[in-house]
Amino acid sequence: MSAIDRLTDELSRLPGIGSKTALRLVHHLMKGSKEDPRRIARALMDLAEKVRSCTVCGNFTEQDVCDICLNPRRDRSLLCVVEEAYEVSAIERTGQYRGLFHVLGGRLSPLDGVGPDELNVATLLSRIDDAAGEIQEVILATNASVEGEATSVFLEQEIRPFGPRVTRLARGIPVGSDLEYVDGTTIAQALAGRREI
Amino acid sequence: MSAIDRLTDELSRLPGIGSKTALRLVHHLMKGSKEDPRRIARALMDLAEKVRSCTVCGNFTEQDVCDICLNPRRDRSLLCVVEEAYEVSAIERTGQYRGLFHVLGGRLSPLDGVGPDELNVATLLSRIDDAAGEIQEVILATNASVEGEATSVFLEQEIRPFGPRVTRLARGIPVGSDLEYVDGTTIAQALAGRREI
Repeated sequence: MSAIDRLTDELSRLPGIGSKTALRLVHHLMKGSKEDPRRIARALMDLAEKVRSCTVCGNFTEQDVCDICLNPRRDRSLLCVVEEAYEVSAIERTGQYRGLFHVLGGRLSPLDGVGPDELNVATLLSRIDDAAGEIQEVILATNASVEGEATSVFLEQEIRPFGPRVTRLARGIPVGSDLEYVDGTTIAQALAGRREI
Repeated sequence: MSAIDRLTDELSRLPGIGSKTALRLVHHLMKGSKEDPRRIARALMDLAEKVRSCTVCGNFTEQDVCDICLNPRRDRSLLCVVEEAYEVSAIERTGQYRGLFHVLGGRLSPLDGVGPDELNVATLLSRIDDAAGEIQEVILATNASVEGEATSVFLEQEIRPFGPRVTRLARGIPVGSDLEYVDGTTIAQALAGRREI
């Protein structure tokens, strides 16, 4: 197998990249400087070598403990639980959250054989327990899917005995969207969660 | 800059990949085995180290001379001229062409400062000359764009004195398309080039 075919083959396994897109990318890389593919290769190697999970929260990091966990200016009374590590950056980008995170590493999905033991639930509970009351609110930011909701309900029951408030992200109309195109369940939840102006 | 940011940055420079797609790819690579990014990195390195231009035709190869040029079963009386090396594989995939190739490395584009000297025109002419009549037909398979056509007209004038027939790909209705959606110029060319059934 030639170097071109091998790279095309590797790239076409990535999500959203079919064999034609892969071939176009390979041709693009061949037309440019030899330094371009080398730089991407080094960045990929770095990713494989350096990036791992934070031993405290499960977020991506290049150290043992991630920058968010180490940051003394973060609000340690708030803990936001997300399904996947990349969701941390989605919340961080808003600039509106100053608490800590905990990454579950997935959602409950009995059909796929994912129960509480497959997720970082035990570490979440022991983290809340160890904090001995310092964590005053746990925000469940699981996805608004059936499985995300089920995970959220399960976690609420597990966390409640430890004392902190347990909240979840508001459901409602996404900013910028027309009511006409929003599904009924979302509108119903937005109505139920309506707030004084 | 973290390994994640650096890779996201590198990937988002590729054509057709924006920063969101790049981030999704990076997250995909982080969720899977560490071996995945390493394998892609090695394929990229191989591309940079091994792939170069065939010294005869300009096609991509991992040797001095490409497999097509070396293949004794190819028809040496036919020479197909393409703009870019990746267009060789588009023609090869049809399985309908058994001749040789010559890669120009671009098309004439005076506005971008691309004249005959910037393309592999001299090597094309000396190749035809050296073959001393063995090349009986040169197929100009430049793109059907204004610049491709201009390149084709220019090459025709240059090649003619050496003796071979000079042909170009037929213009016409693409297979599978509705006349309704085909532009007028294409239909006009398809009419002019109509053939007995």
